[in-house]
This record gives sequence, C-alpha cells and structure tokens, in this order.
Amino acid sequence: MTVRVETLLSRYRSVRQETESRAAPLSDADATPQSMADASPAKWHLAHTSWFFEQFILSAYVPEYEAFDADFAYLFNSYYEAAGPRHQRSARGLITRPALDRVRAYRAHVDDAVARAMPDLGEEARALITLGLHHEEQHQELMLTDILHLFAQNPLEPVYAADGVRAEAIEDGLSWHDHAGGLVEIGHEDDGFAFDCEGPRHKVHLEPFALASRLVTNAEWDEFIDDGGYQTAALWLSDGWAWVNGKGITGPLYWRAEQDNRPSQFSLRGRRRLDPAAPVTHISYYEADAFATWAGLRLPTEAEWETRAPSLADAHGQCWQWTGSAYLPYPRFRAAAGAVGEYNGKFMSGQFVLRGSSCATPAGHARDSYRNFFYPHQRWQFAGVRLAKSL
Amino acid sequence: MTVRVETLLSRYRSVRQETESRAAPLSDADATPQSMADASPAKWHLAHTSWFFEQFILSAYVPEYEAFDADFAYLFNSYYEAAGPRHQRSARGLITRPALDRVRAYRAHVDDAVARAMPDLGEEARALITLGLHHEEQHQELMLTDILHLFAQNPLEPVYAADGVRAEAIEDGLSWHDHAGGLVEIGHEDDGFAFDCEGPRHKVHLEPFALASRLVTNAEWDEFIDDGGYQTAALWLSDGWAWVNGKGITGPLYWRAEQDNRPSQFSLRGRRRLDPAAPVTHISYYEADAFATWAGLRLPTEAEWETRAPSLADAHGQCWQWTGSAYLPYPRFRAAAGAVGEYNGKFMSGQFVLRGSSCATPAGHARDSYRNFFYPHQRWQFAGVRLAKSL
Amino acid sequence: MTVRVETLLSRYRSVRQETESRAAPLSDADATPQSMADASPAKWHLAHTSWFFEQFILSAYVPEYEAFDADFAYLFNSYYEAAGPRHQRSARGLITRPALDRVRAYRAHVDDAVARAMPDLGEEARALITLGLHHEEQHQELMLTDILHLFAQNPLEPVYAADGVRAEAIEDGLSWHDHAGGLVEIGHEDDGFAFDCEGPRHKVHLEPFALASRLVTNAEWDEFIDDGGYQTAALWLSDGWAWVNGKGITGPLYWRAEQDNRPSQFSLRGRRRLDPAAPVTHISYYEADAFATWAGLRLPTEAEWETRAPSLADAHGQCWQWTGSAYLPYPRFRAAAGAVGEYNGKFMSGQFVLRGSSCATPAGHARDSYRNFFYPHQRWQFAGVRLAKSL
Amino acid sequence: MTVRVETLLSRYRSVRQETESRAAPLSDADATPQSMADASPAKWHLAHTSWFFEQFILSAYVPEYEAFDADFAYLFNSYYEAAGPRHQRSARGLITRPALDRVRAYRAHVDDAVARAMPDLGEEARALITLGLHHEEQHQELMLTDILHLFAQNPLEPVYAADGVRAEAIEDGLSWHDHAGGLVEIGHEDDGFAFDCEGPRHKVHLEPFALASRLVTNAEWDEFIDDGGYQTAALWLSDGWAWVNGKGITGPLYWRAEQDNRPSQFSLRGRRRLDPAAPVTHISYYEADAFATWAGLRLPTEAEWETRAPSLADAHGQCWQWTGSAYLPYPRFRAAAGAVGEYNGKFMSGQFVLRGSSCATPAGHARDSYRNFFYPHQRWQFAGVRLAKSL
Repeated sequence: MTVRVETLLSRYRSVRQETESRAAPLSDADATPQSMADASPAKWHLAHTSWFFEQFILSAYVPEYEAFDADFAYLFNSYYEAAGPRHQRSARGLITRPALDRVRAYRAHVDDAVARAMPDLGEEARALITLGLHHEEQHQELMLTDILHLFAQNPLEPVYAADGVRAEAIEDGLSWHDHAGGLVEIGHEDDGFAFDCEGPRHKVHLEPFALASRLVTNAEWDEFIDDGGYQTAALWLSDGWAWVNGKGITGPLYWRAEQDNRPSQFSLRGRRRLDPAAPVTHISYYEADAFATWAGLRLPTEAEWETRAPSLADAHGQCWQWTGSAYLPYPRFRAAAGAVGEYNGKFMSGQFVLRGSSCATPAGHARDSYRNFFYPHQRWQFAGVRLAKSL
Repeated sequence: MTVRVETLLSRYRSVRQETESRAAPLSDADATPQSMADASPAKWHLAHTSWFFEQFILSAYVPEYEAFDADFAYLFNSYYEAAGPRHQRSARGLITRPALDRVRAYRAHVDDAVARAMPDLGEEARALITLGLHHEEQHQELMLTDILHLFAQNPLEPVYAADGVRAEAIEDGLSWHDHAGGLVEIGHEDDGFAFDCEGPRHKVHLEPFALASRLVTNAEWDEFIDDGGYQTAALWLSDGWAWVNGKGITGPLYWRAEQDNRPSQFSLRGRRRLDPAAPVTHISYYEADAFATWAGLRLPTEAEWETRAPSLADAHGQCWQWTGSAYLPYPRFRAAAGAVGEYNGKFMSGQFVLRGSSCATPAGHARDSYRNFFYPHQRWQFAGVRLAKSL
Repeated sequence: MTVRVETLLSRYRSVRQETESRAAPLSDADATPQSMADASPAKWHLAHTSWFFEQFILSAYVPEYEAFDADFAYLFNSYYEAAGPRHQRSARGLITRPALDRVRAYRAHVDDAVARAMPDLGEEARALITLGLHHEEQHQELMLTDILHLFAQNPLEPVYAADGVRAEAIEDGLSWHDHAGGLVEIGHEDDGFAFDCEGPRHKVHLEPFALASRLVTNAEWDEFIDDGGYQTAALWLSDGWAWVNGKGITGPLYWRAEQDNRPSQFSLRGRRRLDPAAPVTHISYYEADAFATWAGLRLPTEAEWETRAPSLADAHGQCWQWTGSAYLPYPRFRAAAGAVGEYNGKFMSGQFVLRGSSCATPAGHARDSYRNFFYPHQRWQFAGVRLAKSL
Repeated sequence: MTVRVETLLSRYRSVRQETESRAAPLSDADATPQSMADASPAKWHLAHTSWFFEQFILSAYVPEYEAFDADFAYLFNSYYEAAGPRHQRSARGLITRPALDRVRAYRAHVDDAVARAMPDLGEEARALITLGLHHEEQHQELMLTDILHLFAQNPLEPVYAADGVRAEAIEDGLSWHDHAGGLVEIGHEDDGFAFDCEGPRHKVHLEPFALASRLVTNAEWDEFIDDGGYQTAALWLSDGWAWVNGKGITGPLYWRAEQDNRPSQFSLRGRRRLDPAAPVTHISYYEADAFATWAGLRLPTEAEWETRAPSLADAHGQCWQWTGSAYLPYPRFRAAAGAVGEYNGKFMSGQFVLRGSSCATPAGHARDSYRNFFYPHQRWQFAGVRLAKSL
C-alpha cells in the first residue's frame, strides 16, 4: 500500500518543522558542544537527520541529486558501517563549523530535493522516507534530552524555554490492573509503521500478574531515599551497587538536596522545586530495580506491559518505563539487508527495554509495541518506573 | 527430606578432596597471583570455599566453633555484603601469606569441625552444606580456568598437567534436532539440588526450531577467520564490534597463528597444535553471535536448549554453550533471605546464559536446567557454540 | 616609579583591543568548545582576562565597583586557589552561555570601570594592572594556539584567517655563536616589567659552548623522520620513547604525510604544503631532545640561551625554543604573597623552560630573560629547536 | 688501573651473598607478585641482577658460556632496548615459574661461570663486573622497598624480619651548617667507581646558604599534619596539590592515624608506633617541598648538598634526601655507547635528584656525589627531607 504523495509530503514538512521548532531557542554555541559521549550536539542532530534522507533517499534514488557538501557524509553519519567511514562519535562537539545557519541551509537543500523528488519515488523509497521521519522524531527527543544534559553542566543553569516539556503531576491514586496470564500475542501487526524490532508478532506465555495503574512519583522516590535506599546493598543488583558507589549516586539525575529538605530538580525550565506528585524521571535501570525491590514488588516484563498497556491512563507521554526485559530479538526477527538493517538489531546486547513514551517524545511517535532501549546505567532520558507484581 | 549423615559426609569428603587434587600440581607461587580482575588465585579458591562452610555453617550453627584465624573472614569473603566487609577483589593476588600450607591447614581445620558437627546439624544446616559443596564445585572449575589464564601470561607457557582437561574431538557429523514448538515447561522441579535461579519451573511458548546435534568445531571457526569474520562489521553486534576493534581480537583466546597456517592453542597441557575436530572454546558471546550470523543461523534460547538437551550427545562435559538469552529471573523467582540470597539474583543484569557444562566442570555437577552466566566479552571459560535455527 | 595614567591607559586600551582583534574571526560557536584539557575556549580567554582585572583591581581597590555578573568569578577564575572556588578546568567547553556578545559586554564593563578608576589608583594597583596586561598578552598567544588545536580536530579543517601567523622561512645558513664560558649573570634586572620567575638576577658558571645561529628547519626535521628518528629507541629519553609509542607519534603535531612525499601541515591558514625552509614548530621536548641526540648535539641550557641571545637574529618571533633546563626557582626566588603569588611559582615541577618567543606572541611581550614552561609532552604551542654544543 | 682478581672475586661473592641474605626471609610466594608497576618481584630482582652478568659479561666475553635458560634473557631484561625485546614491565608479577629455587640455581650457574672466567677477563670486562656489582646493590635496596610495599597491601601485615631496617632516632638538636657561596666543584673525580651521571666534575656557582644539621623528624612532620599542611593549597606545587587531592593523601606512605592520636607506621618489622625522633621517610617530592614551604625554608640544591655533605653526621644511612634539583645531565655528560649507556642518561626528564643514602642502602654503596632520582610523586623509597635556607 503506497502512501499518497500529498499525505507523505505534508507529514514530511510537519516533522521537519517540529525539529526546527525544538532547535529554535538555541544559539550556534548552544548547538555545538557535546556534554558526554552518549549525547550529541543539537547541530549534529539537525544535520544527521538530513543526512539520513540524503544518504538513503536522494543519493540512492535521485540520480541528478547534488550533495550540499561532500564532507557532510563523513561528518554526519552516525553508526552505519555500510554507509562508509564517519567522524568519531566522541568528537562531535568540536565541529564549530559548519555554523548553525549553514546546517539550516543544508536542511532546506535536502527538503527541496525531497519535495521535488517525491512524486517520482516508488514504494520502497517512500517507505524509507517514512522510516526517515520516524528516525527524525527519535532525534527530536534526543535533542531535548541532550540539551538538558548540556545545560545541566553549566553552573549558570540556563533555561531552554519557560514551557519546556516535563512530566506532569499525577492526580490518581494507585490501583492494580490485573491479568489472568496465559498465552498472549505481542509485537506489531497492523499495517501502520513500526520499527523492525517491534516484530514479528508472536505468542508469549504469561503468569498471572498486575500492573500499577500509575507511575511512581517523586514523593515515593523521596521516601526511598529517606529510607536509605541508596545505602542499602541488599536492594541492589551487583552491577548497580558498584555503579552507585563508584559514581557517588544519591538520587535521580538533576536532583539536588536543598536545606529545607525538599529537593530541587534541574529541567528544561531551569531549576525548580520538585513536584512531589509528578512521576520520577531520569533514573537508571539499576535504580528502578532497587526501588521495586525496596517496595517488595518488581518491574514488569515487556510482554506484561504491552498486554496491559491499553488500559493504562499514563502509558504514554510522561516517561519511558524500564521493564525487566533485556533488549533481544523476537522469534524469527531478521534485520533488513543493507545499511538500514543496522538501525536496531546490532544493539541487541547489554541493554534493557523501556516501554511507553515520554513528555519529550513527539506526539504520535510511539505505540504500545514500541521498544526503546538503553544500558542499565543510562539516565539522561525521561525514564521512570511503573511497578508490577505476580499474582 | 533430610540427607543421611553418612551420605552427606562421604560427599563432603569427596568434593573437598577433588579441590585438593586440582590444586596438587601448583606451587605456593603458582597459587598466589591474580592474572586479571575476573580471576582469583588458586589459594584464594582453596580458602574461600572453606570460608563458606565456616561462615554459613560453623559460625552460624556450632556455638563452640573457634575460627582458625580471625582475619580470614575479611580476606576470603567474596561478595557477600551481608557477611561483612571484605578484601578488595582486584587485590587478591598480593596476599603472599598465608602460605599455601597454611591454607591447607585451614581446610583441614574446617573439615574436622564440619565432620564433628554434622551429626547434630538440622535440615537447614545440612541444606547449606549441600549448597556449599555445589559452590565448591563451581570454584573447582574456576580454579582450572584461572590457572590456565595465569599460565597463559607467562612467556614460558608452563604446563599444568600433561593430562589437563580439554574439549575432545567430535566424531559425529552435523544433523538437526527439530522441535515443533508450542507450550513447554522449563526450570528445575525434581527434589534433587538446584541453584535458586534454576526455578521456579514455568511455562514458555516456543516457535518451531532445531538445535544442532553437535558443537561448532575449531575447523569451522578457522573457516570463519579465513573468511574475514573478525573484519566484517555487518556480522557483529555494535558492542561486539567495538570490543573486537578496541582489543585487537583476531581469534579465540589462547589461539596463536603459526607459520604453516594451522594455529596452536595454549591449554592446561601447554601449547599444542589445534585439534580441528574438537569444539571451539574460549570465545565470547560477541564472537558466538557473529559466528552464528555468518553461518546464517542463530544461537538457541535457553528454553530451546533445555527442552531439546536430553537428546544431545554432547550437551555436557565439553564446553559451556552461549545462548541468546539474557540472565534474568524466571517468573516468581525470589532470592533467599540473608547472605546466601546474594548467590545468584544480584547478578541478573548485563550477562548472558550459558547452558550445558564443560570439560572443567566436575562430574555430576551440572544439570539440563543449570544456568551459567557471563558478561558478553568474557571468554576465559571453556565456552563454545551450539547453533540453532527457526523452522 | 609610578607609570603615568595616560601611558598606562593607552597601553591598557591597546592590549585589550589586540585581544578583540584576535577573536574577531571567531563565531560564538568557534569560541565555545574545549578541544583538550590543556586548551581553553576563546570565550573563556576573553572573559578570564577580564576577570583578572575585576578580581585583582576592581574588587580590591574600587569600593563602589559592581560586578558585571556575580557568577563570573566562579566561571572565569583559572587556578587561583586564594581567589576562591572555580569551575572545573576540563569542563570549560560546555559553557554555551554567556554568549560571546555577553562576554564582550563584560569586557566593556570592566574596561569602563578600569578607565574610570585608574586616576585614583596607587602604585600597587597600577603594578597589578601592568601585570594584568602581560597576563592578557599570554592569553592572546594561547587563544591562537588553542583555536589552531580546535580547528585541527575538525575534518573540514577551517581557516582561522588567510594571513594567520606562522613561522616564516629562514634565509640564513647555519653558523655557530661561541661563548668562552665562565661566570655570567642571568635573570631580569632593569626597571621594566618582568614576571617574578625571571629573577632574582644571579651568577651562573658556564662551560665553553656554542649556540646555533638559526632554528632547526622543517627540511632538517624531515631528514630526521626519513632516517627513522621516530623508530630508533637509542635517540630517546625513556619517557619520550614511551610517549612516542603509546601515542603512535610519527612527526610533529599537524603534519600529515602526503603521497608525493612532501608533508602538509595544518595551520591557522588551513592545510598547506610544508615550507622546508621554515623553522619546525609544534614539537615536544621529547622530540627536541631526540633530534638533538640524532644530530650529535644537544639543547642549550637556559643560561646559555640567555647569555648568547642578544646576538641571535631569530631569538624572538618565530618559535619558542626548548631548553634542557627544568623550570625551577632561581636562587632566592620567593613567590609574591596572595593570589598573584600563584602566577608562576606553583608550576615549578615537571616542566621544561622554553626561551625566546613565537609568531603567536604579541609584539613587545617577550624578553631575553623570559621563561616560558611546558610539560615535556606538550606541543600545541609554536615550540621548536635551537641546537647547542659544548666546546 | 686493573682491579686484582682476588679483590674483585671476593667483592663479587660478598655482594652476591648480600642479595641472598636479603631474600632469605621470603617464600616463593612472597617473591612472586608485583604490588605496583614501580615495584618488581623479589624473584625478578634475584634473576635480573644475574641476567646483567650473563648479558654483559658472560655472553659478551666468554665464548664457551652456555646460557642457563634461553628464555631468561627475555624474562629478565629490565629496560635495555639494545639488549633486545623483553617481558612487559607491568606483568612481572605473573611469572610463577621459574620457582624461587630455580632462580637460585640460575644465580649459582652465573656465579660459577663468572668466577671461572674472571682470571681471563680484561680491564673492560672487569669494569663491567664492577658496574654489575653496584647495579646489584641498587637492586638490594629496591628488593627491600618493594617487599615493604607488597606486604603493606596485605591486610595481615606480615613481618619481613624482626630486625628489618628502619631509620633510627636522631639524638641531636637542629643547627645550621653555613656556606659562604662562590664557585665550587661538584661531581665525581677520584679513581673509585661512580655511575656515569655523577660526572663530569664541574664548577657551579653558589649563593650563600645553610644546610640543616639533621633530617626532619616524624614529630615535626606530625606538626605539619596537625597544622593542616595537607589541606592548605598555598603550600603546595600545583601538581602536588592535584596529587594530594586526587589520591586523598593525608600523611606519609605507611602511616595510619590511631585513636590515641599517635600514628602507627607499617615497616619491615610490621606495624609499630611511630618513633617521633626518627627521620620522616616515605614521602614524595611534593610533600617535601610543601613541608619546606610551611617551615619558611626550602630544599637544598644538589650542589649545595654535595658541597656541605662532608660535615653532616646523617648524610648517609638514614634516608634519601629530596633536593630541589631536577635530574639532568652535568655539563659535557655523554652516555656510554651500547646498552650500558641506557643505565642513567635516558631517565633525565621529569625526575628529581635525591642525595645521601638510606637505611636500606647496602653499606659502602653510596658516595657524596651519588645521584639518586625519582618522580616527584614516588614515595615507596626511604625518602625524607633535609632543609636548607639562603643566607
């Protein structure tokens, strides 16, 4: 089934525009440094998402296309071995030129070329454009979390925007959504877009379980801290205990203890007092697991989450939710041939799956079958906890 | 069901004796250094396994027991946070005293006390003795793999024993053991001993699959090398590719290219020409996964392995077999209370499950439900590959 | 002797203007990242040199002075322990705000306040202004060498300026300037400005020696490379040999071998073919020492250099010249009391003295008694070699 | 002037015997591990000192000599690039075989061969034997300091010997030995043995100065600690301050604060209460320099030390004394040709000179012209402080 050109072009424009909007508050300087190896400069996100279309659509399907700048393929390839050599990831923050304006010109150049080419592109190329738009939405989220991390390193604590996204207070009390267990199916199956790793749809056997109706809050996390959670070895995975002690971790990323005992939190809006009713965010898998152990509960598996998600009010739009499932291929999964086959499959070791989506995720991007993944120590994303228990 | 004293005592003596036998070829000097953080000195293994009985049986259940040396609890605790502070793991190799003879005296002291106490011990304590014996068997295996690693750092390439264990040549051709899929049960269930992480027994849904009737051989691995396997990014997980390049890996641990194109391998028998028909060993998960991708196949899941293992001739006694399953808790798993609860559960992040057992595993130690686990880069164990495919 | 206000103010304006001129080709983005721990962002240089006047003049001697921004003292103190806590040196490159324009406003604010205050300042404060101007000149040089290093990390190899400074070709042949040895005096003595470490003037006994009339050239360095200099252990200090091999060094910083055998060099003018007649620059002490050993000669001591410098045509303005003297206090040297006492004295371990000045040194900044100092592995400065020999 | 065979042989036997005596309290295990990269196993010292004679005398001058073990040249070469490849320094502690007994047999084999060859050796070879004996004496000292460091890593704190060497209490009060300054000569000149770096003898001009008549004591050092010396930035060199804070240094190596406020010290005799009247030992250059600054004094230069040493009661036999002089070549110094030329010259960067000798130095080994050298952070030697001042 081919997407109509008008529909695709309209979506293309709207996704590309959203990226620009998110970058609007940033100066050329803001968009340049790299605050850690896991993060990338905003300028790089702006350019890399354009490179994706240039590399996989324009260079592949539009013979007359002329590259905006022959050096950009090297600078803005992320990790596609099949697309040739690339700039060292950890050195992305030293590329002061091209300037932000020139990167914007690059985006415009690519946009023009894609718009002109679109009517003549076949199904395969259009599917790659759709992939490129979902790819760009992922970078829209990363652009915000990377800027948050960068600004957090600045003692001046700059404000990204007065209305920058954040997880919002939860009104509802905690109840439990039960499931009787048995054979269920998970994985993407309808004809909408999904990433390759969301399928194939397949059967999983579940034991009876229940999911919490709402996310863990900052107030609950504060109790965990007050109860000595970060000092109690018995609550932690061995790797987590080494991480907590090696890094001197005493609370979620961006929290700071204040004298009156109510912590503050650095956010895209600057430093603010913590909202006790908001979901806790910016925690690692190690912390999520330790909290669940402290609560006498556990994290859900991704199959449990996906099965029960349709009944949850806050499955999406607040924070990613760590599951207890390792990021591994579903039965019969095979990565696509060629460079885009490197999109997901090659990351299937050492990481855990997060489900749902966050306040930084663009509207409409995620699905219940969506599988996000991070290493267990990473916490610069809006990642939180939904608890589960066996029945 | 309580084990009879005579049976338990006889098994106690035989396990303790096997440890001594494995240490017999070692001098005090051989038994002292630590060749890397993952490995421990033989002297430490000899003492730590005795500390386990002292700490969890004698100190806990035998009021009149007098510790052999008050300092040993600190020196020879491994990772039990609940059992108090302990010597830093990475500095185990600088403990030149106690001498090997004194560690042997410590073993005899503990053995005497355990033998004297045994008739009066109740079910709980006897269960802990049984756990301690299985624990000691695990260290028997580690003692050999750690010595192999230590000797491999010595340019003189010392021989541990002329008949040191090794994986033996496989006579059989490759065939496939099919399974129709569907709901199966895995996990330990009979009344024999098993580690806590082997249960609870539970249902798993499988897709139709087949397991290789035999292990991958050195000759097959050599083909993988000759075909540029270690230089082909597309075959590797992203973390694996970084590992291969960062460490300059070009073949299994202990292999060395020789001028006539037939590699040699360092072993407990010293350096020998590689036996092409023997199973490949000393490979990482990354290598196992890349090999399977190269072969157009995959690694089995642990549920697939356990379901089909009874039909395999070489499931046990040659090498551990990497599965594609992360080491995670089975449904309803709960770690035991107290220090022995730290035995397995706290390691459930970042590691992969290996099934079967190796030539270094003591006879009778392993089971089809046995779950060994290592980080994906570790390869100083006798770890190899059994291939699988979806049907 | 007090400097006249008009003279001091005129010099103040001219030095401050030179800093602005050197920053003129840079965008806010160019001025933000830090390419290595040894280097600082241009924005930081611009602000820190202003902080120096704010901290040591305005806050100390001008009661009504109001700080431009209360946070800047923390951000822009470099290493003065006595001036309070400061931002971590290695994280200077993540300060995207203040923007470059705001740093320029800071400079203007400080300049106005200094100009207004100057008539009322006493001798001590005026001496500190003079120190601040020499301090700023040092940062003018660093700003260029740090930008060169930053741009060298960018695969696009940006050009700082078409006429960016560089060491210029040497026309003269090599001859030797002899000295008969005996008791000489070195160290600053006239009533002009000098840094504290340049004195006290004192006697040194010299053996007969000769200094080369000109600097070592790129062509001579190329011979050293061609002769296997970087692969010959016997030529190197032990630390240097470890450095060469650990870092894979094969030539001066910014050199690149080209196919036609004539290397290119990255410079403030971009990448250019090497000028064989220009002095070699961007080499470490280890390389300088190895080259001298290869040539059967040696580096001069700083006393030899200072004694014979007046007769040299290229003592200044091309490149700093490594001496074989460690950077240590002269007899009776005492650091000044207070924060400015930290200027030089606390760096007197592990570094070597360089004499002369470079093409990046502001005109009029250096003297024959000037003692520059760097660690023996550092080479991002315009550092080269003048040879010496004992007679 | 050729040394008589009987004299040389007698000295050879006595030096070799002293090495054995120092190793006598050590087991094979004690003699095997390496506690840090700077230290070496005792077994290695025993073998390397023998290798020196094998390599530079027997292999070079005795055609019929048969090497004890062909592999030992690789294992026991220290840093002589010209003598061929060698085992990685940092991995010396994993060589469990050869056993200590076999190393002793190696020593006997070399001793027999040297004794047999000696009558026929010419002047050059005899000079090399003399060098080898002084070399062995240096390793005698290192063997003790390395064992002390190794034993200090063992929580059991083993005793090397009840009468192990230590710095002894000083009875005398502090007075000052003045010197009027002027031109002096330093460096070795008589016809006895000296290392190459002790010459050539040459003139140095000194300002008037005074040396303390005795070493700084533990009691004085304790005052420095009590006065906050380790927490006062202004006292420290910049590199020293980074070292103190990076490593969390709060006192000399092997000191431990005790509850009653009188520290204990680990020594070759085990842990003992600190003797307040004994010289402080096991301090770094950074600490020595900070202490001198705190005392309003300074460290002597090596020329000052050498000039005034003959009048000092405790110049030798207690502890090495840090000077403020970098380890650099004397005027006209040239390293010898060949491998023995690597003995001293290649270490002339980044290190400071220590003068005198310590309680661990073999009797008769040192001279007033002797130049020991270590990096400014190193402190596992018996290194202490003698203060100086300018007059």
